[in-house]
Amino acid sequence: MSKVVNSIREAVRLAGLKDGMTVSFHHHLRNGDYVLNMVMEEIAALGIRDLCVNASSLFDVHLPLTEHIRNGVVTNLISDYISGGIGRVLSTGILPNPIQFRTHGGRPFDISTGKTPIDVAFIAAPTADPMGNCSGKYGPSACGSLGYAFADAMYAKKVVVITDNLVPYPMQDFSISENYVDYVVTVDAIGNPKGIVSGTTKITRDPVGLVMAANAAKVIQASGLLKDGFSFQTGAGGATLAAAKFLKDIMLKEGIQGSFGLGGITGYMVDMLRSGCFRSLMDVQCFDLKAVESIREDPRHQEISALQYASPGSKSAVVDSLDVVLLGATEIDTDFNVNVHTDSNGYIMGGSGGHSDTSAGAKLSMIIAPMFRARLPIVTDRVSCISTPGRDIDVLVTQGGIAVNPKNGELTQRLKAAGLPIVDIQELKEKTERLTGKPAPVPKGDQVVAQVIGRNGDLLDQIYKPL
Amino acid sequence: MSKVVNSIREAVRLAGLKDGMTVSFHHHLRNGDYVLNMVMEEIAALGIRDLCVNASSLFDVHLPLTEHIRNGVVTNLISDYISGGIGRVLSTGILPNPIQFRTHGGRPFDISTGKTPIDVAFIAAPTADPMGNCSGKYGPSACGSLGYAFADAMYAKKVVVITDNLVPYPMQDFSISENYVDYVVTVDAIGNPKGIVSGTTKITRDPVGLVMAANAAKVIQASGLLKDGFSFQTGAGGATLAAAKFLKDIMLKEGIQGSFGLGGITGYMVDMLRSGCFRSLMDVQCFDLKAVESIREDPRHQEISALQYASPGSKSAVVDSLDVVLLGATEIDTDFNVNVHTDSNGYIMGGSGGHSDTSAGAKLSMIIAPMFRARLPIVTDRVSCISTPGRDIDVLVTQGGIAVNPKNGELTQRLKAAGLPIVDIQELKEKTERLTGKPAPVPKGDQVVAQVIGRNGDLLDQIYKPL
Repeated sequence: MSKVVNSIREAVRLAGLKDGMTVSFHHHLRNGDYVLNMVMEEIAALGIRDLCVNASSLFDVHLPLTEHIRNGVVTNLISDYISGGIGRVLSTGILPNPIQFRTHGGRPFDISTGKTPIDVAFIAAPTADPMGNCSGKYGPSACGSLGYAFADAMYAKKVVVITDNLVPYPMQDFSISENYVDYVVTVDAIGNPKGIVSGTTKITRDPVGLVMAANAAKVIQASGLLKDGFSFQTGAGGATLAAAKFLKDIMLKEGIQGSFGLGGITGYMVDMLRSGCFRSLMDVQCFDLKAVESIREDPRHQEISALQYASPGSKSAVVDSLDVVLLGATEIDTDFNVNVHTDSNGYIMGGSGGHSDTSAGAKLSMIIAPMFRARLPIVTDRVSCISTPGRDIDVLVTQGGIAVNPKNGELTQRLKAAGLPIVDIQELKEKTERLTGKPAPVPKGDQVVAQVIGRNGDLLDQIYKPL
Repeated sequence: MSKVVNSIREAVRLAGLKDGMTVSFHHHLRNGDYVLNMVMEEIAALGIRDLCVNASSLFDVHLPLTEHIRNGVVTNLISDYISGGIGRVLSTGILPNPIQFRTHGGRPFDISTGKTPIDVAFIAAPTADPMGNCSGKYGPSACGSLGYAFADAMYAKKVVVITDNLVPYPMQDFSISENYVDYVVTVDAIGNPKGIVSGTTKITRDPVGLVMAANAAKVIQASGLLKDGFSFQTGAGGATLAAAKFLKDIMLKEGIQGSFGLGGITGYMVDMLRSGCFRSLMDVQCFDLKAVESIREDPRHQEISALQYASPGSKSAVVDSLDVVLLGATEIDTDFNVNVHTDSNGYIMGGSGGHSDTSAGAKLSMIIAPMFRARLPIVTDRVSCISTPGRDIDVLVTQGGIAVNPKNGELTQRLKAAGLPIVDIQELKEKTERLTGKPAPVPKGDQVVAQVIGRNGDLLDQIYKPL
């Protein structure tokens, strides 16, 4: 008995894909992913049209998708993150309907409740067996965790596993189990290893970044949260990684044993695990090769589904137990609303990912950002797009001072007592504008190209086609 | 943040349990389980009545449940297996409604579809953390796999984890994840380790058992299935274990590397894994301490949920990939229907468990049973209860010959060619009756005390109150 079929095209046919249906993809292969393009090419060749693509994230490698949009094969798009190159094209309004941005927690929530049903899920699997048990930890295209693919596998009507490493049944250490899988397809390669995971992301050497990072670490130290049992998530940016490095030094010096590191896991988090800063890593996605090796080899490094990571519909998610999250921003306004969706010209170049989920869950949500980029201030009167509501953000750390959300009076006192350079966010904005000047507002067009849907389903904002 | 509440009673209250609802339990603690009795005592003390208890199996340790039935606290019962002591009491018809017997695959199927919804699931967890991540592999009451508890956790409206080994969040190597769990309760002990797992079950020394076992191994050898990739499930009875031992010897001698052992796992299956007979064990339940140690230590020994094990609603279950299953019977009729529910007096003393699921899935389903027990023939004109339909049974192995289901002509030829003592099942019945005499039929009463529901939901048979 075997679920292996001859080709992607055969799997699409057997799955009964028809005009108007929804297909889904996960993004663990990141900018090295071949699967979305391969599948969409076959779907287009079969003449199927008017599809909704629900992809946990899209990268520039997925630019061919824009052709399928122009040709009417795809008319709806749901995603949590869209990178700058493809985002720029999508910002021009080529889709007949607005993109629905969701979050890494909201997406699996809406899949699990049937709000955004999936007809056929395509799971890019670095290793699979003929009955569909599969894992991201092994094989030439290993990506580590398959966290974002679980909800797709569990709730889609039909599930197609696509692999370049078919092993005998039953495979050992599977993540997604056969009971969810309908068909298995083997291909020569599901991705380009160079694009799947970066080498090792480097800590910033930029002096401004290092000042911010040191301040961020000091904020955490002064917050009262840095004690045994401490838990932490950070991104893969140069300054946030530097902050993690400073934090690690403090934890080791003070003998603090944290409970877990969460996220999107980098080699720096693996270093913190190995050096005893954490008892465990909870991993929904691996960012680099060191993380992939670690999740494969170290039982303390645990794979979690996006449902467990961040779904607001779960009885609890790991983000609910998180102490501190360190996040970036392209803009933040004086109400602490954060934009991570659009660039300074209003083009899509990102998305929430887990930004709003972790901000909502963590006890301390920190934004680390420079006062300005390319002479454009980070702090504005009103962000051009609300990705994460200001109520969920506690602190902004810049090289020019640390602004605390006024709702968090106790934290302000703690940071002041620790001698940290606290500044009112309005003053920080004015101080920055004295250096950069106040930029003219970016004009917006009339066409809504994307809706930003919060993790609980509320419409947070709309993104308009730039003029 | 923590889901730990002060007592089982508080958890029952918080879960909102009301008259007429359904509570569920899993049976990995077997005859050592304290949890079902503790919970039902609290529920009774709260004055809640008219409940349905959905327990994957019931053992004699659960005899106090019969008092809750007599008092009207419990009026409906769903289970896959009920052992002889409590079965005898339940056979007297103390429940106002017939027991609904299901199978280990049918039970999670019906839970997952909402046919048998669960209001509150109680998960006996040998180790858990304060958010409800839990495992059976660790702790003083370790039982190994929690396979039967997954569907309860995933689909119940409220889930209560009860543990005697609370560890810091997040626990390592959890099986059931926090996103399904509402409350956690700590108690002094969830079970008696002596009852949870037997020591090591012993291979039979009975000469009749050894003849049957040797014949069973020869049938497998001659079936054409015993080759590289071979997969196998067997029970924990003395003769089936002896057959596994003979099979192991053949596999080692002939250098056959099987793919997986399935089931209910005993130390004998662990021995087969370690000696290279299988690449993997797929474990829905551990039968002894050696199996518990193995699932904890050996990554080739994998926990599976009952949905993955045997649910007919899964896109595939492991039973669908099974080559050979070796099963017992209290009766088998000339149409190969098997009874494992009732004893020779018509009292409940078992149940399907995975009997019909594996019989339906396996390429070769073998019954191993003596020609007679206590002068009562095993082969009858019509079993007093159909547990597994004859269409799913291929072979009956006795000390007096091997009977092949006539639907399986090719197998008959193979076994004859191998020189095995093939006998027509009708002749086997007559041969046995010449030794034992033909027993008088057991008279049945009018009251239906149990319905036997097949894995696909069809009513296979009814069990009547013995006169």
